[in-house]
Amino acid sequence: MPEQPQASQRGRRPGDPAETRDNILDAARGLFAEAGFDKASIRRIAARAQVDPALIHHHFGTKQQLFIAAMRAPVNPVDIVKGIIDGPPSELGHRIAEAFVGVWDSPAGTGLAHTLRAVLAQDGMTIAIREFVNHQLVPVLITALDGDEQERRFRANLALSQLLGLAVTRYLVRIEPIADVPATEVVRHIAPTLQHYLTGPLDAD
Amino acid sequence: MPEQPQASQRGRRPGDPAETRDNILDAARGLFAEAGFDKASIRRIAARAQVDPALIHHHFGTKQQLFIAAMRAPVNPVDIVKGIIDGPPSELGHRIAEAFVGVWDSPAGTGLAHTLRAVLAQDGMTIAIREFVNHQLVPVLITALDGDEQERRFRANLALSQLLGLAVTRYLVRIEPIADVPATEVVRHIAPTLQHYLTGPLDAD
Repeated sequence: MPEQPQASQRGRRPGDPAETRDNILDAARGLFAEAGFDKASIRRIAARAQVDPALIHHHFGTKQQLFIAAMRAPVNPVDIVKGIIDGPPSELGHRIAEAFVGVWDSPAGTGLAHTLRAVLAQDGMTIAIREFVNHQLVPVLITALDGDEQERRFRANLALSQLLGLAVTRYLVRIEPIADVPATEVVRHIAPTLQHYLTGPLDAD
Repeated sequence: MPEQPQASQRGRRPGDPAETRDNILDAARGLFAEAGFDKASIRRIAARAQVDPALIHHHFGTKQQLFIAAMRAPVNPVDIVKGIIDGPPSELGHRIAEAFVGVWDSPAGTGLAHTLRAVLAQDGMTIAIREFVNHQLVPVLITALDGDEQERRFRANLALSQLLGLAVTRYLVRIEPIADVPATEVVRHIAPTLQHYLTGPLDAD
């Protein structure tokens, strides 16, 4: 096997920074799909891409950030959650709804739709996505919640189910009228649901 | 072009009923993707499959039923909604949640997951799915609701967003704990949300 097959195939000079980035992202996608998020280490991805691990950290930062880049996501949902986690717990649902609809309604929404389509389509990426949600995203979200960990995780899952369903109906399938109503209108209806799931009485119907 | 290329390619005898069904379903998927649900008539699908329209009706029934078969869906969501629409309006959310979780938790759930994955993955099928939801599914659901049509459609969209998000989190990505909790537990938490969206005060937060 030639030492740098991708470089010659694409007609770029070996060492080209864009080429290196592409090699790393290809290797990352391959290993995330095969091993999941948790077991795909920067070291193993570096070995597969035939680069130094330090170069991956230099280009992408943490493994979490590399995963976001590999999924071609224009924003990191963990950063968004970190940005709205502080503040009155009684307005957490509203802050999440506003941030979610805000970023999906922004120019980043097109890229997010492509990413969501791609990750839902590939059964092979399910484990990596699940581990990313369970071990990267949910732990940040539940720092704002009360109760034992299992209950807080379940609350976060319920909120996530409403958010992902909103993404599918408003942004992926674009069902009317929910795809056409103003952002404020969507936030107004989704926020109380999120608030109930996150902090409401889970035993009462 | 040979008269029955698919038949010879697959090594089946022309006129084989399974072959005819496959031809019709291929033609249906192609036309639904190109023209959407509304404009893809049985007549046009029959012309593309080089069969008599009556044969399509004989094999599949209505265009709605043909669409369900073409999407490889093991159940028709319109039939499920029809089955739970009657009864006390104050328990509509519970009936929908129970029927939805019931069918997804049943052996049909695997097929539903494949179908949902496939339709979400293909940007080309978006228009057909949207028209199916807007013009086949939602009109049945909103017969149980009060208000003007736009409001009833918006209510149905909100409920659908919660249901699809549940499908994505519990059945497609299988995030824990929501993927592992008993059906009754999921129904208990989702039903009040659906009920609120369908019949609750939409103006109050």
